Amino acid sequence: MVVEFVGPRRARERFRAGLVAPTAAWAPGYAQANLVAVPRDVASDFRLFAQRNPKPCPVLDVTEPGCPVTSLAPGADLRTDLPAYRVWENGELAAETGDVSGYWRDDLVAFLIGCSFTFERALTAADVPVRHLEQGRNVPMYITSQACRAAGVFSGPLVVSMRPIPPDRVAAAIQVTSRYPAVHGAPVHAGRPEALGIADLSAPDFGDPVHGQDGDVPVFWACGVTPQVALARARPPFAITHAPGHMFITDVPDEAYAV
Amino acid sequence: MVVEFVGPRRARERFRAGLVAPTAAWAPGYAQANLVAVPRDVASDFRLFAQRNPKPCPVLDVTEPGCPVTSLAPGADLRTDLPAYRVWENGELAAETGDVSGYWRDDLVAFLIGCSFTFERALTAADVPVRHLEQGRNVPMYITSQACRAAGVFSGPLVVSMRPIPPDRVAAAIQVTSRYPAVHGAPVHAGRPEALGIADLSAPDFGDPVHGQDGDVPVFWACGVTPQVALARARPPFAITHAPGHMFITDVPDEAYAV
Repeated sequence: MVVEFVGPRRARERFRAGLVAPTAAWAPGYAQANLVAVPRDVASDFRLFAQRNPKPCPVLDVTEPGCPVTSLAPGADLRTDLPAYRVWENGELAAETGDVSGYWRDDLVAFLIGCSFTFERALTAADVPVRHLEQGRNVPMYITSQACRAAGVFSGPLVVSMRPIPPDRVAAAIQVTSRYPAVHGAPVHAGRPEALGIADLSAPDFGDPVHGQDGDVPVFWACGVTPQVALARARPPFAITHAPGHMFITDVPDEAYAV
Repeated sequence: MVVEFVGPRRARERFRAGLVAPTAAWAPGYAQANLVAVPRDVASDFRLFAQRNPKPCPVLDVTEPGCPVTSLAPGADLRTDLPAYRVWENGELAAETGDVSGYWRDDLVAFLIGCSFTFERALTAADVPVRHLEQGRNVPMYITSQACRAAGVFSGPLVVSMRPIPPDRVAAAIQVTSRYPAVHGAPVHAGRPEALGIADLSAPDFGDPVHGQDGDVPVFWACGVTPQVALARARPPFAITHAPGHMFITDVPDEAYAV
Protein backbone atom coordinates (compact mmCIF):
# COMPACT_ATOMS: atom_id res chain seq x y z
CA MET A 1 0.00 0.00 0.00
CA VAL A 2 1.45 3.37 -1.04
CA VAL A 3 1.53 5.98 1.71
CA GLU A 4 3.33 9.29 1.42
CA PHE A 5 3.83 11.37 4.52
CA VAL A 6 2.76 14.65 3.04
CA GLY A 7 0.21 17.31 3.90
CA PRO A 8 -3.29 17.42 2.43
CA ARG A 9 -2.49 19.79 -0.44
CA ARG A 10 0.48 17.73 -1.59
CA ALA A 11 -1.53 14.52 -1.22
CA ARG A 12 -4.26 15.89 -3.48
CA GLU A 13 -1.60 16.94 -6.00
CA ARG A 14 -0.26 13.38 -6.09
CA PHE A 15 -3.73 11.98 -6.73
CA ARG A 16 -4.43 14.67 -9.33
CA ALA A 17 -1.20 13.61 -11.02
CA GLY A 18 -2.55 10.07 -11.33
CA LEU A 19 -1.57 8.14 -8.21
CA VAL A 20 -4.20 5.61 -7.11
CA ALA A 21 -3.96 4.51 -3.45
CA PRO A 22 -6.24 4.00 -0.45
CA THR A 23 -5.97 7.14 1.65
CA ALA A 24 -5.77 5.55 5.11
CA ALA A 25 -2.68 6.98 6.88
CA TRP A 26 -2.24 9.73 4.26
CA ALA A 27 -1.93 13.35 5.44
CA PRO A 28 -2.11 12.40 9.11
CA GLY A 29 -4.02 14.93 11.17
CA TYR A 30 -6.36 16.02 8.38
CA ALA A 31 -9.97 14.90 7.96
CA GLN A 32 -10.93 12.72 5.03
CA ALA A 33 -14.35 12.64 3.39
CA ASN A 34 -16.58 10.39 1.33
CA LEU A 35 -17.87 11.88 -1.94
CA VAL A 36 -21.36 11.44 -3.37
CA ALA A 37 -22.30 13.66 -6.33
CA VAL A 38 -25.82 13.38 -7.74
CA PRO A 39 -27.92 15.43 -10.18
CA ARG A 40 -29.74 18.33 -8.59
CA ASP A 41 -33.17 16.69 -9.02
CA VAL A 42 -32.33 13.80 -6.68
CA ALA A 43 -30.09 15.85 -4.36
CA SER A 44 -32.91 16.80 -2.03
CA ASP A 45 -33.93 13.16 -1.55
CA PHE A 46 -30.31 12.40 -0.82
CA ARG A 47 -30.04 15.24 1.68
CA LEU A 48 -33.09 13.87 3.49
CA PHE A 49 -31.62 10.35 3.47
CA ALA A 50 -28.44 11.71 5.08
CA GLN A 51 -30.43 13.64 7.66
CA ARG A 52 -32.41 10.54 8.62
CA ASN A 53 -29.25 8.42 8.87
CA PRO A 54 -26.72 10.69 10.54
CA LYS A 55 -24.46 7.90 11.84
CA PRO A 56 -23.49 6.56 8.37
CA CYS A 57 -24.09 9.89 6.53
CA PRO A 58 -22.73 12.86 8.51
CA VAL A 59 -22.67 15.65 5.93
CA LEU A 60 -19.62 17.92 6.22
CA ASP A 61 -20.32 20.05 3.13
CA VAL A 62 -22.70 20.34 0.15
CA THR A 63 -21.54 22.10 -3.01
CA GLU A 64 -23.38 24.44 -5.36
CA PRO A 65 -24.74 22.63 -8.47
CA GLY A 66 -22.01 22.08 -11.03
CA CYS A 67 -19.33 23.62 -8.83
CA PRO A 68 -16.50 21.18 -7.96
CA VAL A 69 -15.27 23.32 -5.09
CA THR A 70 -15.69 22.81 -1.34
CA SER A 71 -15.04 24.95 1.70
CA LEU A 72 -13.29 21.95 3.27
CA ALA A 73 -10.28 22.47 1.00
CA PRO A 74 -10.20 25.81 -0.85
CA GLY A 75 -8.31 25.37 -4.11
CA ALA A 76 -9.07 21.67 -4.42
CA ASP A 77 -10.96 20.30 -7.42
CA LEU A 78 -13.41 17.52 -6.56
CA ARG A 79 -13.16 16.19 -10.15
CA THR A 80 -9.46 15.35 -10.00
CA ASP A 81 -8.17 15.39 -6.43
CA LEU A 82 -9.39 12.02 -5.19
CA PRO A 83 -7.25 8.95 -5.95
CA ALA A 84 -10.14 6.93 -7.40
CA TYR A 85 -13.76 7.52 -8.38
CA ARG A 86 -16.72 5.46 -9.38
CA VAL A 87 -19.07 6.65 -12.09
CA TRP A 88 -22.60 5.29 -11.94
CA GLU A 89 -25.28 5.15 -14.64
CA ASN A 90 -28.74 3.95 -13.67
CA GLY A 91 -27.29 2.34 -10.55
CA GLU A 92 -24.66 0.36 -12.49
CA LEU A 93 -20.96 0.96 -12.19
CA ALA A 94 -20.07 2.56 -15.52
CA ALA A 95 -16.41 3.38 -14.84
CA GLU A 96 -13.75 3.43 -12.16
CA THR A 97 -11.23 6.14 -12.84
CA GLY A 98 -8.77 8.55 -11.26
CA ASP A 99 -10.23 11.65 -12.94
CA VAL A 100 -13.90 12.48 -13.55
CA SER A 101 -13.38 15.77 -15.40
CA GLY A 102 -14.80 14.18 -18.53
CA TYR A 103 -17.91 12.96 -16.69
CA TRP A 104 -18.70 16.08 -14.68
CA ARG A 105 -22.07 17.78 -15.26
CA ASP A 106 -23.44 21.24 -14.54
CA ASP A 107 -26.27 19.85 -12.42
CA LEU A 108 -24.13 17.74 -10.05
CA VAL A 109 -24.42 18.48 -6.34
CA ALA A 110 -21.55 16.98 -4.33
CA PHE A 111 -21.99 15.79 -0.76
CA LEU A 112 -18.88 15.42 1.37
CA ILE A 113 -19.55 12.95 4.14
CA GLY A 114 -17.47 12.33 7.26
CA CYS A 115 -15.07 9.38 7.24
CA SER A 116 -13.90 7.31 10.18
CA PHE A 117 -10.25 7.60 9.07
CA THR A 118 -10.50 11.02 10.72
CA PHE A 119 -10.47 9.53 14.22
CA GLU A 120 -7.77 6.93 13.65
CA ARG A 121 -4.92 9.19 14.72
CA ALA A 122 -6.79 9.90 17.97
CA LEU A 123 -7.19 6.13 18.46
CA THR A 124 -3.47 5.58 18.01
CA ALA A 125 -2.71 8.47 20.37
CA ALA A 126 -4.94 6.78 22.97
CA ASP A 127 -2.93 3.56 22.63
CA VAL A 128 -5.69 1.79 20.72
CA PRO A 129 -4.08 -0.26 17.94
CA VAL A 130 -5.49 0.25 14.43
CA ARG A 131 -4.95 -3.18 12.89
CA HIS A 132 -5.57 -2.30 9.24
CA LEU A 133 -2.89 0.39 9.43
CA GLU A 134 -0.52 -2.04 11.17
CA GLN A 135 -1.20 -4.53 8.38
CA GLY A 136 -0.96 -1.95 5.57
CA ARG A 137 -4.49 -2.60 4.37
CA ASN A 138 -7.70 -0.78 3.62
CA VAL A 139 -10.29 -0.97 6.42
CA PRO A 140 -12.73 -3.88 5.95
CA MET A 141 -16.36 -2.88 5.32
CA TYR A 142 -19.50 -5.01 5.46
CA ILE A 143 -23.09 -4.69 4.27
CA THR A 144 -25.28 -5.42 7.31
CA SER A 145 -28.80 -6.81 7.71
CA GLN A 146 -29.83 -3.51 9.31
CA ALA A 147 -31.95 -1.16 7.17
CA CYS A 148 -31.40 2.58 6.98
CA ARG A 149 -34.40 4.89 7.21
CA ALA A 150 -35.58 5.44 3.64
CA ALA A 151 -36.02 8.90 2.07
CA GLY A 152 -37.54 9.41 -1.37
CA VAL A 153 -35.74 7.17 -3.85
CA PHE A 154 -33.01 6.29 -1.33
CA SER A 155 -33.05 3.23 0.90
CA GLY A 156 -30.74 0.36 1.72
CA PRO A 157 -28.73 -1.44 4.35
CA LEU A 158 -26.32 0.07 6.83
CA VAL A 159 -22.69 -0.48 5.83
CA VAL A 160 -20.13 -0.68 8.63
CA SER A 161 -16.35 -0.55 8.93
CA MET A 162 -14.72 -2.99 11.35
CA ARG A 163 -11.70 -2.57 13.60
CA PRO A 164 -10.48 -5.45 15.78
CA ILE A 165 -9.82 -4.03 19.26
CA PRO A 166 -8.11 -5.70 22.26
CA PRO A 167 -10.79 -6.26 24.93
CA ASP A 168 -9.00 -4.01 27.40
CA ARG A 169 -8.98 -1.12 24.89
CA VAL A 170 -12.65 -1.30 23.81
CA ALA A 171 -13.63 1.36 26.37
CA ALA A 172 -10.86 3.69 25.18
CA ALA A 173 -11.84 3.14 21.53
CA ILE A 174 -15.43 4.10 22.32
CA GLN A 175 -14.44 7.09 24.46
CA VAL A 176 -12.18 8.46 21.73
CA THR A 177 -14.53 7.95 18.81
CA SER A 178 -17.52 9.31 20.76
CA ARG A 179 -15.76 12.67 20.55
CA TYR A 180 -16.06 12.65 16.74
CA PRO A 181 -19.81 12.56 15.93
CA ALA A 182 -19.26 14.29 12.57
CA VAL A 183 -17.11 11.42 11.36
CA HIS A 184 -19.39 8.50 12.40
CA GLY A 185 -18.71 8.87 16.13
CA ALA A 186 -19.13 5.97 18.52
CA PRO A 187 -19.43 2.43 17.16
CA VAL A 188 -22.86 1.02 16.39
CA HIS A 189 -21.95 -2.48 17.50
CA ALA A 190 -19.33 -4.45 19.39
CA GLY A 191 -18.58 -8.11 19.59
CA ARG A 192 -21.20 -9.97 17.56
CA PRO A 193 -20.81 -9.82 13.76
CA GLU A 194 -23.66 -12.33 13.36
CA ALA A 195 -26.08 -9.89 15.02
CA LEU A 196 -25.39 -7.53 12.10
CA GLY A 197 -25.88 -10.33 9.57
CA ILE A 198 -22.14 -10.62 8.91
CA ALA A 199 -21.37 -14.31 8.39
CA ASP A 200 -17.64 -14.13 7.65
CA LEU A 201 -15.33 -11.37 8.83
CA SER A 202 -12.62 -12.56 6.45
CA ALA A 203 -14.84 -11.76 3.46
CA PRO A 204 -15.61 -8.02 3.63
CA ASP A 205 -17.91 -6.51 0.99
CA PHE A 206 -15.47 -3.61 0.51
CA GLY A 207 -11.86 -3.01 1.52
CA ASP A 208 -9.45 -5.69 2.68
CA PRO A 209 -9.74 -8.52 5.19
CA VAL A 210 -7.94 -7.55 8.39
CA HIS A 211 -6.99 -10.05 11.04
CA GLY A 212 -7.35 -9.27 14.71
CA GLN A 213 -4.74 -10.43 17.13
CA ASP A 214 -5.79 -13.31 19.32
CA GLY A 215 -8.61 -12.16 21.57
CA ASP A 216 -9.41 -8.92 19.71
CA VAL A 217 -13.08 -7.95 19.72
CA PRO A 218 -14.60 -6.88 16.38
CA VAL A 219 -16.01 -3.37 16.76
CA PHE A 220 -18.21 -1.82 14.05
CA TRP A 221 -18.65 1.81 13.06
CA ALA A 222 -21.26 3.21 10.66
CA CYS A 223 -19.58 3.73 7.30
CA GLY A 224 -19.75 6.35 4.56
CA VAL A 225 -20.08 3.62 1.94
CA THR A 226 -23.70 3.29 3.13
CA PRO A 227 -24.88 6.07 0.78
CA GLN A 228 -23.11 4.39 -2.17
CA VAL A 229 -25.13 1.24 -1.61
CA ALA A 230 -28.31 3.33 -1.33
CA LEU A 231 -27.29 5.05 -4.56
CA ALA A 232 -26.83 1.75 -6.40
CA ARG A 233 -30.34 0.73 -5.29
CA ALA A 234 -31.95 4.07 -6.13
CA ARG A 235 -30.57 3.85 -9.67
CA PRO A 236 -30.51 7.55 -10.47
CA PRO A 237 -29.57 8.17 -14.11
CA PHE A 238 -26.14 9.44 -13.08
CA ALA A 239 -23.85 9.77 -10.07
CA ILE A 240 -20.20 10.01 -9.11
CA THR A 241 -18.69 8.73 -5.86
CA HIS A 242 -15.24 8.07 -4.45
CA ALA A 243 -14.03 4.47 -4.68
CA PRO A 244 -14.27 2.78 -1.24
CA GLY A 245 -11.25 3.64 0.89
CA HIS A 246 -10.05 6.24 -1.63
CA MET A 247 -11.24 9.39 0.07
CA PHE A 248 -11.11 13.13 -0.41
CA ILE A 249 -8.43 14.57 1.87
CA THR A 250 -9.54 17.93 3.26
CA ASP A 251 -7.61 20.83 4.76
CA VAL A 252 -9.62 20.53 7.99
CA PRO A 253 -7.64 19.27 11.00
CA ASP A 254 -9.11 16.11 12.54
CA GLU A 255 -9.41 17.97 15.82
CA ALA A 256 -11.84 20.46 14.29
CA TYR A 257 -14.39 17.64 14.38
CA ALA A 258 -13.73 16.65 18.02
CA VAL A 259 -16.28 17.68 20.63
CA MET B 1 -34.67 -10.24 46.46
CA VAL B 2 -36.13 -7.60 48.81
CA VAL B 3 -36.20 -4.08 47.42
CA GLU B 4 -38.01 -1.19 49.09
CA PHE B 5 -38.49 2.00 47.15
CA VAL B 6 -37.42 4.38 49.85
CA GLY B 7 -34.87 7.15 50.21
CA PRO B 8 -31.36 6.60 51.58
CA ARG B 9 -32.16 7.57 55.18
CA ARG B 10 -35.13 5.21 55.35
CA ALA B 11 -33.12 2.46 53.67
CA ARG B 12 -30.40 2.72 56.30
CA GLU B 13 -33.06 2.63 59.03
CA ARG B 14 -34.43 -0.63 57.62
CA PHE B 15 -30.95 -2.17 57.60
CA ARG B 16 -30.23 -0.83 61.09
CA ALA B 17 -33.47 -2.51 62.20
CA GLY B 18 -32.12 -5.83 60.98
CA LEU B 19 -33.10 -6.27 57.33
CA VAL B 20 -30.47 -8.11 55.27
CA ALA B 21 -30.72 -7.58 51.49
CA PRO B 22 -28.42 -6.79 48.57
CA THR B 23 -28.69 -3.05 47.96
CA ALA B 24 -28.90 -3.04 44.14
CA ALA B 25 -31.98 -1.01 43.15
CA TRP B 26 -32.41 0.39 46.68
CA ALA B 27 -32.73 4.18 47.13
CA PRO B 28 -32.53 4.85 43.41
CA GLY B 29 -30.64 8.02 42.59
CA TYR B 30 -28.27 7.82 45.58
CA ALA B 31 -24.68 6.62 45.49
CA GLN B 32 -23.72 3.42 47.25
CA ALA B 33 -20.30 2.66 48.70
CA ASN B 34 -18.08 -0.25 49.63
CA LEU B 35 -16.78 -0.28 53.21
CA VAL B 36 -13.29 -1.29 54.33
CA ALA B 37 -12.35 -0.53 57.95
CA VAL B 38 -8.84 -1.38 59.11
CA PRO B 39 -6.74 -0.54 62.19
CA ARG B 40 -4.91 2.75 61.97
CA ASP B 41 -1.49 1.09 61.67
CA VAL B 42 -2.33 -0.55 58.33
CA ALA B 43 -4.57 2.29 57.09
CA SER B 44 -1.74 4.12 55.38
CA ASP B 45 -0.74 1.02 53.41
CA PHE B 46 -4.36 0.65 52.43
CA ARG B 47 -4.62 4.28 51.35
CA LEU B 48 -1.57 3.79 49.13
CA PHE B 49 -3.05 0.59 47.68
CA ALA B 50 -6.22 2.52 46.79
CA GLN B 51 -4.22 5.33 45.25
CA ARG B 52 -2.25 2.93 43.09
CA ASN B 53 -5.41 1.11 41.96
CA PRO B 54 -7.92 3.89 41.40
CA LYS B 55 -10.19 1.91 39.03
CA PRO B 56 -11.16 -0.77 41.62
CA CYS B 57 -10.57 1.47 44.69
CA PRO B 58 -11.91 5.00 44.12
CA VAL B 59 -11.98 6.44 47.65
CA LEU B 60 -15.03 8.64 48.35
CA ASP B 61 -14.33 9.26 52.05
CA VAL B 62 -11.95 8.25 54.87
CA THR B 63 -13.11 8.54 58.49
CA GLU B 64 -11.25 9.67 61.61
CA PRO B 65 -9.90 6.72 63.64
CA GLY B 66 -12.66 5.14 65.74
CA CYS B 67 -15.33 7.47 64.41
CA PRO B 68 -18.15 5.61 62.58
CA VAL B 69 -19.39 8.78 60.88
CA THR B 70 -18.95 9.89 57.26
CA SER B 71 -19.59 13.12 55.39
CA LEU B 72 -21.35 11.06 52.71
CA ALA B 73 -24.37 10.59 55.02
CA PRO B 74 -24.44 12.82 58.08
CA GLY B 75 -26.32 11.06 60.86
CA ALA B 76 -25.58 7.58 59.58
CA ASP B 77 -23.70 5.07 61.72
CA LEU B 78 -21.25 2.91 59.78
CA ARG B 79 -21.49 0.19 62.47
CA THR B 80 -25.20 -0.51 61.99
CA ASP B 81 -26.49 1.03 58.77
CA LEU B 82 -25.27 -1.49 56.22
CA PRO B 83 -27.41 -4.61 55.63
CA ALA B 84 -24.53 -7.05 56.10
CA TYR B 85 -20.90 -6.94 57.23
CA ARG B 86 -17.95 -9.24 57.26
CA VAL B 87 -15.60 -9.31 60.24
CA TRP B 88 -12.05 -10.48 59.52
CA GLU B 89 -9.40 -11.74 61.92
CA ASN B 90 -5.94 -12.45 60.53
CA GLY B 91 -7.39 -12.58 57.02
CA GLU B 92 -10.01 -15.18 57.95
CA LEU B 93 -13.73 -14.50 57.90
CA ALA B 94 -14.61 -14.46 61.62
CA ALA B 95 -18.25 -13.42 61.36
CA GLU B 96 -20.93 -12.25 58.93
CA THR B 97 -23.46 -10.07 60.70
CA GLY B 98 -25.90 -7.20 60.27
CA ASP B 99 -24.43 -5.09 63.11
CA VAL B 100 -20.77 -4.62 64.00
CA SER B 101 -21.26 -2.40 67.07
CA GLY B 102 -19.87 -5.18 69.25
CA TYR B 103 -16.76 -5.51 67.06
CA TRP B 104 -15.96 -1.83 66.53
CA ARG B 105 -12.60 -0.53 67.79
CA ASP B 106 -11.23 2.89 68.56
CA ASP B 107 -8.40 2.54 66.07
CA LEU B 108 -10.52 1.62 63.03
CA VAL B 109 -10.24 3.86 59.98
CA ALA B 110 -13.10 3.34 57.52
CA PHE B 111 -12.66 3.76 53.78
CA LEU B 112 -15.77 4.32 51.69
CA ILE B 113 -15.10 3.25 48.14
CA GLY B 114 -17.20 4.00 45.06
CA CYS B 115 -19.59 1.32 43.82
CA SER B 116 -20.76 0.68 40.29
CA PHE B 117 -24.41 0.49 41.41
CA THR B 118 -24.15 4.29 41.34
CA PHE B 119 -24.18 4.40 37.53
CA GLU B 120 -26.88 1.80 36.96
CA ARG B 121 -29.72 4.31 36.93
CA ALA B 122 -27.86 6.31 34.29
CA LEU B 123 -27.46 3.10 32.25
CA THR B 124 -31.18 2.42 32.43
CA ALA B 125 -31.93 6.04 31.50
CA ALA B 126 -29.70 5.60 28.43
CA ASP B 127 -31.70 2.53 27.38
CA VAL B 128 -28.95 0.11 28.38
CA PRO B 129 -30.57 -2.91 30.04
CA VAL B 130 -29.15 -3.94 33.43
CA ARG B 131 -29.70 -7.69 33.40
CA HIS B 132 -29.08 -8.43 37.09
CA LEU B 133 -31.76 -5.90 38.04
CA GLU B 134 -34.14 -7.38 35.43
CA GLN B 135 -33.47 -10.80 36.92
CA GLY B 136 -33.71 -9.64 40.54
CA ARG B 137 -30.19 -10.74 41.38
CA ASN B 138 -26.98 -9.40 42.82
CA VAL B 139 -24.40 -8.40 40.20
CA PRO B 140 -21.93 -11.25 39.41
CA MET B 141 -18.31 -10.59 40.41
CA TYR B 142 -15.17 -12.47 39.39
CA ILE B 143 -11.58 -12.70 40.61
CA THR B 144 -9.39 -12.07 37.55
CA SER B 145 -5.88 -13.16 36.63
CA GLN B 146 -4.83 -9.51 36.53
CA ALA B 147 -2.72 -8.28 39.46
CA CYS B 148 -3.27 -4.96 41.21
CA ARG B 149 -0.25 -2.79 41.99
CA ALA B 150 0.92 -3.78 45.46
CA ALA B 151 1.35 -1.31 48.33
CA GLY B 152 2.87 -2.30 51.69
CA VAL B 153 1.06 -5.37 52.97
CA PHE B 154 -1.66 -5.11 50.33
CA SER B 155 -1.62 -6.95 47.01
CA GLY B 156 -3.94 -9.20 45.06
CA PRO B 157 -5.94 -9.72 41.91
CA LEU B 158 -8.34 -7.29 40.28
CA VAL B 159 -11.98 -8.21 40.95
CA VAL B 160 -14.54 -7.20 38.32
CA SER B 161 -18.31 -6.97 38.10
CA MET B 162 -19.93 -8.18 34.87
CA ARG B 163 -22.94 -6.84 33.02
CA PRO B 164 -24.16 -8.55 29.83
CA ILE B 165 -24.82 -5.79 27.27
CA PRO B 166 -26.53 -6.04 23.85
CA PRO B 167 -23.84 -5.44 21.19
CA ASP B 168 -25.66 -2.36 19.88
CA ARG B 169 -25.65 -0.80 23.39
CA VAL B 170 -21.99 -1.41 24.28
CA ALA B 171 -21.01 2.08 23.08
CA ALA B 172 -23.79 3.71 25.14
CA ALA B 173 -22.80 1.67 28.22
CA ILE B 174 -19.21 2.87 27.91
CA GLN B 175 -20.20 6.47 27.22
CA VAL B 176 -22.46 6.58 30.28
CA THR B 177 -20.11 4.89 32.72
CA SER B 178 -17.11 6.93 31.52
CA ARG B 179 -18.87 9.90 33.11
CA TYR B 180 -18.56 8.27 36.57
CA PRO B 181 -14.83 7.85 37.27
CA ALA B 182 -15.39 8.02 41.05
CA VAL B 183 -17.53 4.89 40.95
CA HIS B 184 -15.26 2.69 38.78
CA GLY B 185 -15.94 4.60 35.54
CA ALA B 186 -15.51 2.98 32.14
CA PRO B 187 -15.21 -0.80 31.88
CA VAL B 188 -11.79 -2.40 32.00
CA HIS B 189 -12.70 -5.12 29.51
CA ALA B 190 -15.31 -6.11 26.98
CA GLY B 191 -16.06 -9.36 25.27
CA ARG B 192 -13.44 -11.91 26.31
CA PRO B 193 -13.84 -13.35 29.84
CA GLU B 194 -10.99 -15.79 29.16
CA ALA B 195 -8.57 -12.89 28.67
CA LEU B 196 -9.27 -11.98 32.30
CA GLY B 197 -8.79 -15.58 33.42
CA ILE B 198 -12.53 -16.12 33.91
CA ALA B 199 -13.30 -19.68 32.83
CA ASP B 200 -17.02 -19.85 33.56
CA LEU B 201 -19.32 -16.82 33.65
CA SER B 202 -22.05 -18.90 35.30
CA ALA B 203 -19.84 -19.43 38.36
CA PRO B 204 -19.05 -15.98 39.79
CA ASP B 205 -16.77 -15.72 42.80
CA PHE B 206 -19.20 -13.29 44.46
CA GLY B 207 -22.81 -12.30 43.80
CA ASP B 208 -25.22 -14.27 41.62
CA PRO B 209 -24.92 -15.77 38.16
CA VAL B 210 -26.73 -13.54 35.66
CA HIS B 211 -27.69 -14.70 32.21
CA GLY B 212 -27.30 -12.46 29.20
CA GLN B 213 -29.91 -12.49 26.51
CA ASP B 214 -28.85 -14.19 23.33
CA GLY B 215 -26.02 -12.21 21.77
CA ASP B 216 -25.24 -10.04 24.81
CA VAL B 217 -21.57 -9.16 25.20
CA PRO B 218 -20.05 -9.58 28.69
CA VAL B 219 -18.64 -6.23 29.82
CA PHE B 220 -16.44 -5.97 32.92
CA TRP B 221 -16.01 -3.11 35.36
CA ALA B 222 -13.38 -2.84 38.13
CA CYS B 223 -15.09 -3.78 41.40
CA GLY B 224 -14.93 -2.54 44.98
CA VAL B 225 -14.59 -6.13 46.22
CA THR B 226 -10.97 -5.94 45.00
CA PRO B 227 -9.78 -4.41 48.31
CA GLN B 228 -11.56 -7.17 50.26
CA VAL B 229 -9.55 -9.79 48.45
CA ALA B 230 -6.36 -7.79 49.07
CA LEU B 231 -7.39 -7.59 52.72
CA ALA B 232 -7.85 -11.35 53.00
CA ARG B 233 -4.34 -11.81 51.58
CA ALA B 234 -2.72 -9.13 53.74
CA ARG B 235 -4.11 -10.84 56.87
CA PRO B 236 -4.16 -7.81 59.15
CA PRO B 237 -5.10 -8.80 62.70
CA PHE B 238 -8.53 -7.21 62.31
CA ALA B 239 -10.81 -5.63 59.70
CA ILE B 240 -14.46 -5.00 58.94
CA THR B 241 -15.97 -4.79 55.45
CA HIS B 242 -19.43 -4.80 53.89
CA ALA B 243 -20.63 -8.16 52.58
CA PRO B 244 -20.39 -8.23 48.75
CA GLY B 245 -23.43 -6.56 47.18
CA HIS B 246 -24.62 -5.26 50.57
CA MET B 247 -23.43 -1.69 50.36
CA PHE B 248 -23.55 1.50 52.35
CA ILE B 249 -26.22 3.78 50.89
CA THR B 250 -25.12 7.41 51.02
CA ASP B 251 -27.04 10.68 50.89
CA VAL B 252 -25.02 11.77 47.83
CA PRO B 253 -26.99 11.88 44.57
CA ASP B 254 -25.54 9.65 41.83
CA GLU B 255 -25.23 12.73 39.63
CA ALA B 256 -22.80 14.33 42.08
CA TYR B 257 -20.25 11.81 40.79
CA ALA B 258 -20.92 12.45 37.11
CA VAL B 259 -18.37 14.47 35.17
